[in-house]
Amino acid sequence: MRREVFDEDHEAFRKLARDFIEKHVVPGYPEWEKAGRMPRETFRQLGSLGMLGMAIPEAHGGAGVPDFRYNVVLQEEAARALVTLSTVRTQLDVILPYFLEYTNEEQRSRWFPGMAAGELLTAIAMTEPGTGSDLAGIRTTARREGDEYVVNGAKTFITGGILADLVIVVARTSTDPDNRRAGLTLLVVEDGMPGFVRGRQLDKMGCKVQDTAELSFQDVRVPVANRLGEEGDAFRYLGRNLPQERMTVAVGSVAQARAAVATTIDYVKERKAFGTPVASFQNTKFELAAMSAEIEAAQSMIDRAVLDLVDGELSGADAARVKLFCTEVQGRVVDRCLQLFGGYGYMTEYPIARLYTDARVARIYAGTSEVMKVIIAKSLGL
Amino acid sequence: MRREVFDEDHEAFRKLARDFIEKHVVPGYPEWEKAGRMPRETFRQLGSLGMLGMAIPEAHGGAGVPDFRYNVVLQEEAARALVTLSTVRTQLDVILPYFLEYTNEEQRSRWFPGMAAGELLTAIAMTEPGTGSDLAGIRTTARREGDEYVVNGAKTFITGGILADLVIVVARTSTDPDNRRAGLTLLVVEDGMPGFVRGRQLDKMGCKVQDTAELSFQDVRVPVANRLGEEGDAFRYLGRNLPQERMTVAVGSVAQARAAVATTIDYVKERKAFGTPVASFQNTKFELAAMSAEIEAAQSMIDRAVLDLVDGELSGADAARVKLFCTEVQGRVVDRCLQLFGGYGYMTEYPIARLYTDARVARIYAGTSEVMKVIIAKSLGL
Amino acid sequence: MRREVFDEDHEAFRKLARDFIEKHVVPGYPEWEKAGRMPRETFRQLGSLGMLGMAIPEAHGGAGVPDFRYNVVLQEEAARALVTLSTVRTQLDVILPYFLEYTNEEQRSRWFPGMAAGELLTAIAMTEPGTGSDLAGIRTTARREGDEYVVNGAKTFITGGILADLVIVVARTSTDPDNRRAGLTLLVVEDGMPGFVRGRQLDKMGCKVQDTAELSFQDVRVPVANRLGEEGDAFRYLGRNLPQERMTVAVGSVAQARAAVATTIDYVKERKAFGTPVASFQNTKFELAAMSAEIEAAQSMIDRAVLDLVDGELSGADAARVKLFCTEVQGRVVDRCLQLFGGYGYMTEYPIARLYTDARVARIYAGTSEVMKVIIAKSLGL
Amino acid sequence: MRREVFDEDHEAFRKLARDFIEKHVVPGYPEWEKAGRMPRETFRQLGSLGMLGMAIPEAHGGAGVPDFRYNVVLQEEAARALVTLSTVRTQLDVILPYFLEYTNEEQRSRWFPGMAAGELLTAIAMTEPGTGSDLAGIRTTARREGDEYVVNGAKTFITGGILADLVIVVARTSTDPDNRRAGLTLLVVEDGMPGFVRGRQLDKMGCKVQDTAELSFQDVRVPVANRLGEEGDAFRYLGRNLPQERMTVAVGSVAQARAAVATTIDYVKERKAFGTPVASFQNTKFELAAMSAEIEAAQSMIDRAVLDLVDGELSGADAARVKLFCTEVQGRVVDRCLQLFGGYGYMTEYPIARLYTDARVARIYAGTSEVMKVIIAKSLGL
Repeated sequence: MRREVFDEDHEAFRKLARDFIEKHVVPGYPEWEKAGRMPRETFRQLGSLGMLGMAIPEAHGGAGVPDFRYNVVLQEEAARALVTLSTVRTQLDVILPYFLEYTNEEQRSRWFPGMAAGELLTAIAMTEPGTGSDLAGIRTTARREGDEYVVNGAKTFITGGILADLVIVVARTSTDPDNRRAGLTLLVVEDGMPGFVRGRQLDKMGCKVQDTAELSFQDVRVPVANRLGEEGDAFRYLGRNLPQERMTVAVGSVAQARAAVATTIDYVKERKAFGTPVASFQNTKFELAAMSAEIEAAQSMIDRAVLDLVDGELSGADAARVKLFCTEVQGRVVDRCLQLFGGYGYMTEYPIARLYTDARVARIYAGTSEVMKVIIAKSLGL
Repeated sequence: MRREVFDEDHEAFRKLARDFIEKHVVPGYPEWEKAGRMPRETFRQLGSLGMLGMAIPEAHGGAGVPDFRYNVVLQEEAARALVTLSTVRTQLDVILPYFLEYTNEEQRSRWFPGMAAGELLTAIAMTEPGTGSDLAGIRTTARREGDEYVVNGAKTFITGGILADLVIVVARTSTDPDNRRAGLTLLVVEDGMPGFVRGRQLDKMGCKVQDTAELSFQDVRVPVANRLGEEGDAFRYLGRNLPQERMTVAVGSVAQARAAVATTIDYVKERKAFGTPVASFQNTKFELAAMSAEIEAAQSMIDRAVLDLVDGELSGADAARVKLFCTEVQGRVVDRCLQLFGGYGYMTEYPIARLYTDARVARIYAGTSEVMKVIIAKSLGL
Repeated sequence: MRREVFDEDHEAFRKLARDFIEKHVVPGYPEWEKAGRMPRETFRQLGSLGMLGMAIPEAHGGAGVPDFRYNVVLQEEAARALVTLSTVRTQLDVILPYFLEYTNEEQRSRWFPGMAAGELLTAIAMTEPGTGSDLAGIRTTARREGDEYVVNGAKTFITGGILADLVIVVARTSTDPDNRRAGLTLLVVEDGMPGFVRGRQLDKMGCKVQDTAELSFQDVRVPVANRLGEEGDAFRYLGRNLPQERMTVAVGSVAQARAAVATTIDYVKERKAFGTPVASFQNTKFELAAMSAEIEAAQSMIDRAVLDLVDGELSGADAARVKLFCTEVQGRVVDRCLQLFGGYGYMTEYPIARLYTDARVARIYAGTSEVMKVIIAKSLGL
Repeated sequence: MRREVFDEDHEAFRKLARDFIEKHVVPGYPEWEKAGRMPRETFRQLGSLGMLGMAIPEAHGGAGVPDFRYNVVLQEEAARALVTLSTVRTQLDVILPYFLEYTNEEQRSRWFPGMAAGELLTAIAMTEPGTGSDLAGIRTTARREGDEYVVNGAKTFITGGILADLVIVVARTSTDPDNRRAGLTLLVVEDGMPGFVRGRQLDKMGCKVQDTAELSFQDVRVPVANRLGEEGDAFRYLGRNLPQERMTVAVGSVAQARAAVATTIDYVKERKAFGTPVASFQNTKFELAAMSAEIEAAQSMIDRAVLDLVDGELSGADAARVKLFCTEVQGRVVDRCLQLFGGYGYMTEYPIARLYTDARVARIYAGTSEVMKVIIAKSLGL
């Protein structure tokens, strides 16, 4: 069906992105997977093309066009080429909004040019060992001492944690036991600050190009000038960007599911079983047809939600619906596609194997499917 | 999420429809189910409100606004009230298009005023015993004799067949064995023509308000003036309206699935099990949340497709995707909803039981899910 | 795979049952469905063949062979002939055990000969409007007055309630608010006792041969001699027969699923679509193959559990596992089978339509799937 | 439910296996995964305990007890400890049967002692690049020259291919184009034979302890004395062991699914989310209960089939049913279990991540689910 999401500026950007990915991402991607991260050089290349700074004000080195659709295009083009740019995606869709929303002018001058240029990489450190995504359980503390906060604690599952130059740390600045949601504050810890230690890079089933790390903070002294927004307001800040965080996952899920179907169609046309092209079996046709219908549903939902998000009209419950549905579609699709590859689907040299293992996290991160259901149920008055 | 399908005219029509259904459909509906059909009186009431003639030219008693969205509104409002208007729907979405497209001026003058007024009810007789939806297998013949066709044959599964005043019969006017698709012609058989016999009203699992019948034709003499379009062109005509036929089923599926969820939410809030409201169980919440997400996906898909259909841009393959997906969503949703009613869900006095049995045909009629997959697979080059 | 459940006595019984069903059930079955119940005559015929008294002591007119496997055979043979004997099943598997276990010698003499002969039909009245299967919520009271209990209350969903000569009523004989499970007693209310009124026969989506009714009791005076077991012990009694109640549902589910597959295989072999037998499509083959595998799994589970039940070794949790799984298999199977019938599957004249609507209750009665999960989860220490 | 598969000898063997796995497999397993294979030392240890030679005749260093149930025990115990012994399993269940069935006395003397001792490791080389499991497409040739065959060709997906000392190669000894199934012969290629080259070890999504390799043969001269059975009879030989090959996969699937549930239950009891143990959520309970029921069904099916297999009564179609169903249960179970781990489930340090990726191949190897369906459908007369 027709998509009514993009205008010609987005399509021009798409061309740029496609070209970049083909030339600068695809060739080295298998190496990046082995290394467990994207090279810093790639961020710089993206920066020099203006792809990291679309939303950053022109005054600070960006294009001044905060429009989620550019990020959608970027994900779609990566998926189309059977790769992901997941750390970039985290930076643009999850982290940058905090900087855009809660920085003061001095901070913008300090950080935005580097971020736009791909020189300053970022991460956000929310999850702690044993607490999962429950903000109320955060135990990392930030004790005010004069012009500094003294940060102590440990974080885990930090996307981009190995590479990050700037880490937004969610820390507890007040410990009122009656309101465990209050008293959380966002502080930007910088690479090199004494006491800031990167722990293990975690070994994941998939998403291997995205580094995921444990971080620890021992008496890290963070200047008050590195605080984002007001002290004690982090809980509110973190809630406001959730729809976009969930949308970015959902967008990726659908784009990757679509790519899985495309690569599977290519495969079944060329591959023979028992002397016949796999594509000629009715089962193959029906499987792919069913997936194609599901993807079209998911795409319609995404497109509708992207427009709502861009207009600031997407509710948390609708974002949850979109994430829940689209990540489940992805899960079903990659499983069915892989099956059509037979034994080859299990070999990591075939992208479908990577699409399969990459996909499994989508139903978990940015809020599990179960958390999505809790949110949706509330919106139904249940 | 926001819907961008309707304008204020549609919303005014919606108000009218809602009101009508509440007053004139809901009260008698259980009786209609027992009788196995809607009363003719209801058609006349709908006609007098202008609801049957929206698409019919003003010159012939209609409003001259051929816009599928009015039909969408009608179905949505019926579903909302936990009823269906399925024979009306068949008339408006499936049959009327043939009259609009292939009649000449004389025929229009003859038939449209009655159709707009709800005086002339219609049916289309395509399926034959043993051939299913395979047009190539049609064996009903129409032999030209002077100004008449002599029609012989039998049809089955004819929606509205008991009530219909005008029946479009698909008959074979040429029997070239090399091209069994050619040589099909549309003829309008009228109530009372000698040799036109209504057979059994078929007893269905659900959709009981919609009469479904066997019809037979023994030397029925149909004037050539009752032919729709050209002799031998029926195969082409029948193909052209398929996207709309499938869309109308899909629209109904989503509207009814949504209604099922709404009535289930009401039920679980009020009903207790083991001393606790059923709504308070996490399983209840999660089930309804998951359904809500699926329905929102289906709705997004429908809305996108409705706009494409209205603009004449909906491909057959996309209509197939929409029908396949939306009817499957309906199937899953009514099953899960019914389960939340426990034993009451199995009693026909609860509308969920009817929603369940009504739903089962959606994956079958207007082309089974399997036929949809064949169509989609072709569009994928498989 | 080989089944190791039955010996030659069971197989002889099977032959008898098959013959009886073919001659005395199949021909009149469509009429029974319309009437909403089995004729009393059929019970008498079954009685005269000894099929109702297998478990009843020889001294009281039975065969003295309490062996659940005969009941399994009966269900399997009914399913094989595409019918059900559900009221019989309820009598044998659900109700008779209470009589066998909790009657005294006087009661046995009074009731067993009639039950064995098919002259005395029975029902058990547990569920009340608004309480579902929650025994603790029972509000029907039995007040002791001399040698009588005075029973007041209302029951619903009573299988066999219209035909029953003897109704075991679960009534509250003590109203200690601290222990709502205690104080329940089983009383046998007899047809004709003043104040015992049969209410509406409920209209169900399926299982139409099984009458389901509302019953009410207004100052019904029941002699103490009609009490089963001890006053106040009913909760315990009711719990003890639950594994068998659930097994009988599961046995029926698998037998009917198997029958659905068999009738579907016959259909697809004979029926053509687009000029080709439906059986020749790979989709048809794969669907039926997948169902066949599921049924074989369910059958293995049933057979294992039947042997455990016969040996008195089947735990409540295992019975719950069997019921949960087998009824879900049935649900999936009848849905997939019906789809292969296309439009014919929706017509009640095809048995698959009945198998479909009959099946839907299996996941609900004798404890819903959700209740089964609660029981299983407890057994897992959750 | 009770299992009736094992006697006390099996249980004694189980104790031995459990102890061995705990001491000699579990500690080094993560290292083996990194290395991509089991150490030869472990085979020797298993050999010295008699665990590799159960089925080998006593005269040749074994126990002379060919009983598939010992292999079942071995798999169950490995799964219980959250590891696999997959190359061992391939050797015992897939390869050893060919040696037992088709060797002559001289060959037995030559090979069995080493196999029983864990000194001679084996593989079977069937699949070729591009032909999948289609034996008719085999292109590796064996040209007879005097007392030797000269083997040329390439094989892929060879389990144990890196470690194997003896490789059974399926080669074409006659190229009658009219019967591509005839003319296949089994030849034992030995490590060190000139022209026998091991290619790449394939990188798989999971099953990392099992080495999988490409092998190539360039003018490898294999003595006729290394032929298994008769020339040209391989197609028949290969067919006969298929039921056991499929059973061994199914047995592993159920054992691993069971282990997944057990480790998940442990996890959810200990782990908290939002301050509450994950085990206390109804969703958690219902998920695990549903899985428990499915596993019990699969286990019943396995146990029934194992007894049939041991008695030589298991048909190919029933083996296909068992494999199809049990591997699908495993797929569903590991997916649902992983979800309950949240983010931790995606980290390879949690065994559930490995159970997930290991599981994906089960629906593919030893015949895909699609191939199983083809076999089952044939047995249904479709």
